[in-house]
Amino acid sequence: MYLSKLFIPLLKENPSEAKIKSHQLMLRTGMIKQSSTGIYSWLPLGFKIMKKIEQIVREEQNKIGAQELLMPTIQSAEIWKESGRYDDYGEELLRIKDRQGKEMLYGPTNEELITEIFRASIKSYKSLPQLLYHIQWKFRDELRPRFGVMRCKEFFMKDAYSFDLNDEEAKKSYNKMFFAYLNTFKRLGLTAIPMAADTGPIGGDLSHEFIILADTGESKIYSDKRIFDIDISKHNDADDSIKELREKYDAFYAVTDNKFKKEDFEKKVKKENQLVTKGIEVGHIFYFGDKYSKPLKCSVDLQDGKKVDVKMGSYGIGVSRLVGAIIESKFTNNVMRWPESVAPFEVAIIPSLQKNDKSNYLKAKKIYNLLIKNKIDVLFDDTEDHLSAKFKKFDLIGIPYQIILGSKFTGDKFEFKEINGETETLFLDEIKKKLLNKRN
Amino acid sequence: MYLSKLFIPLLKENPSEAKIKSHQLMLRTGMIKQSSTGIYSWLPLGFKIMKKIEQIVREEQNKIGAQELLMPTIQSAEIWKESGRYDDYGEELLRIKDRQGKEMLYGPTNEELITEIFRASIKSYKSLPQLLYHIQWKFRDELRPRFGVMRCKEFFMKDAYSFDLNDEEAKKSYNKMFFAYLNTFKRLGLTAIPMAADTGPIGGDLSHEFIILADTGESKIYSDKRIFDIDISKHNDADDSIKELREKYDAFYAVTDNKFKKEDFEKKVKKENQLVTKGIEVGHIFYFGDKYSKPLKCSVDLQDGKKVDVKMGSYGIGVSRLVGAIIESKFTNNVMRWPESVAPFEVAIIPSLQKNDKSNYLKAKKIYNLLIKNKIDVLFDDTEDHLSAKFKKFDLIGIPYQIILGSKFTGDKFEFKEINGETETLFLDEIKKKLLNKRN
Repeated sequence: MYLSKLFIPLLKENPSEAKIKSHQLMLRTGMIKQSSTGIYSWLPLGFKIMKKIEQIVREEQNKIGAQELLMPTIQSAEIWKESGRYDDYGEELLRIKDRQGKEMLYGPTNEELITEIFRASIKSYKSLPQLLYHIQWKFRDELRPRFGVMRCKEFFMKDAYSFDLNDEEAKKSYNKMFFAYLNTFKRLGLTAIPMAADTGPIGGDLSHEFIILADTGESKIYSDKRIFDIDISKHNDADDSIKELREKYDAFYAVTDNKFKKEDFEKKVKKENQLVTKGIEVGHIFYFGDKYSKPLKCSVDLQDGKKVDVKMGSYGIGVSRLVGAIIESKFTNNVMRWPESVAPFEVAIIPSLQKNDKSNYLKAKKIYNLLIKNKIDVLFDDTEDHLSAKFKKFDLIGIPYQIILGSKFTGDKFEFKEINGETETLFLDEIKKKLLNKRN
Repeated sequence: MYLSKLFIPLLKENPSEAKIKSHQLMLRTGMIKQSSTGIYSWLPLGFKIMKKIEQIVREEQNKIGAQELLMPTIQSAEIWKESGRYDDYGEELLRIKDRQGKEMLYGPTNEELITEIFRASIKSYKSLPQLLYHIQWKFRDELRPRFGVMRCKEFFMKDAYSFDLNDEEAKKSYNKMFFAYLNTFKRLGLTAIPMAADTGPIGGDLSHEFIILADTGESKIYSDKRIFDIDISKHNDADDSIKELREKYDAFYAVTDNKFKKEDFEKKVKKENQLVTKGIEVGHIFYFGDKYSKPLKCSVDLQDGKKVDVKMGSYGIGVSRLVGAIIESKFTNNVMRWPESVAPFEVAIIPSLQKNDKSNYLKAKKIYNLLIKNKIDVLFDDTEDHLSAKFKKFDLIGIPYQIILGSKFTGDKFEFKEINGETETLFLDEIKKKLLNKRN
């Protein structure tokens, strides 16, 4: 892509309404544009990154055997009355009346609807376990939306739901998701720690929040810092291996403020291992048994003819929120570096261009064409900005690698730079190989 | 995928509420489930097909240089008041008040919002032309939703918008989309004919509906049947080649009932070439100049310092509707055949299985593993249904190819059948090669 063709409205200054760095960066680099309070349009740069995150989330769900479906954004109030949440949910639930006066709502979560789908579809214990998920827009009518996509009204989420015969089986499903989440965040370049959490309005008795460390985090966290050293790559998706992994995590104290008890922390964690800091929630998993299946009468037939309410869990990842969370974690000293797995482009070509001298432009174009031919996704800055202005711009756009053509550039070797890292002088063919290697 | 694991709630009978065959088939094969009047959940089978259609639509948009972004579902009423459509739109517009009493709406279309994004982002004639699109859920509060996904309330659409300096340039953009649409529908296995159409509530002076023939179509169409023989593969995406192609289409009479005039039809089309039938609209393109840019003050600076309102067009494809439209077109004599490009699986393995004899199951499993190893997407019917019941089921699921293991099956060769077509007896390796060839 030529930068001059890309629909990327860059801002010269940080907009005053943006208080945290992800919000600032996303507005500055034209990733998003607010369309009304707390509601954003995703412009091409931001959209591309969000889609890459979505795809990684999807692949890791599929790997554990979860099946994708899609529930609508607008739901009938009826099933929310069945579960009792219609009145409980509070004003964050966007209630809607259609033209016939029927009570509807914009789904803030989908436990009721998935339970309703399940009860209409599955009748026998033989069809269990089931893991179903969707990736859909949700709405929360926040009174004071803030921090850009981190706390906005319309947001994009992956919600998964598990259906099992009994608690023991359900815990296997829970652990599978636990495993999928660790892998998902790892692929996104994040170290996310599962922390024991309150179950909140969804209810239930087992829950983990997945938290990444960030100064701007809304959650205060208390942990044994050794939990950050657990190596998930030593585990595979067999039930036993996952169980072992969960036990490793459970062995270390790690809670958010809701669950924090000072005396426990002091007793269980040696002074030198205590870590008290802030974090951002990027995922949340719950096990809540028959909390929804019971009022919604979602049961299956057992072998002996009896019926049993299915045991359910729910598992969320904030896909649009992750875009902001990755920035909070990777944007330091005014330089952004997207992880390769979600970077908007694999490499940028940054030439110094002069009106009266086409030589650099032609060389840059040659590099561009070669990379495109090799299916490397490249952004070519063909604008006439000064090289220093270009560097400033690309420090924010955050493409991990750069090929730089300075004003006095000659010869066959090019400056190849990792953003925030080393510069090498390489032949084009070496650059190509390096970029292709970065994919793995 | 093993059929016993797939979340696919099959129905034994056509549900009485379904009046047309796409609605019947989608409910019977568990592609969708109604969650409230005119609002559907997409279950795994239907979701997978819709996603494949979405991806083809996306690729053809990208090929003509359109850039993808994503506007939110919920919009502020303000810009709709600026354009004057807030009051005009009628009761199909789902109007919403948020908790602070602010007037919002669920977007039924996005001309206002994209214009607002454009005017805030692009200032100079140098940045034109621009083609932007998104694929998003939209809502129309239909009084009497019917025909399943063909006329429902919440639906999935691709909307593109073009921005140009003048009418002449704008027509090039229009023609590019025209070309992309023909290619899109061709890849979906459909013959869609562009027909001159009324511009309706969007307004403007140039418009085509893309129509596929179907008895259940809502549009009456009048055409010169020779228009169906135009070969688009002879044209490429150069402006001239596309222009020539448009002229070929324009040479033949083809209109929907809104534009129909009996005397024109009689005069322009010889009796033997007259085709009067019904069709389904699968796409609609409009050119409307400054209809929105003028009231919304969306202008760019010209070279001489003057300002000019940009000239816009909009281009829609109903992605969720296409799922139904393809069924209407391909489901005949109670047998469905999905085009390869959007089929939910590439091939089905249909063995006769007995409780007391594992041999067929083991053979089928061996075939399954080999196909999976070759990354062929296969559905294995591992249920104990009778073979005749399995055939009936697969006639509806519509996977284009079948590998059949009858009850008296022996040897190394297998029955390989194209649904609605020939049966051959082939070695497994031959079947593999055939399936891989079908991809191109």
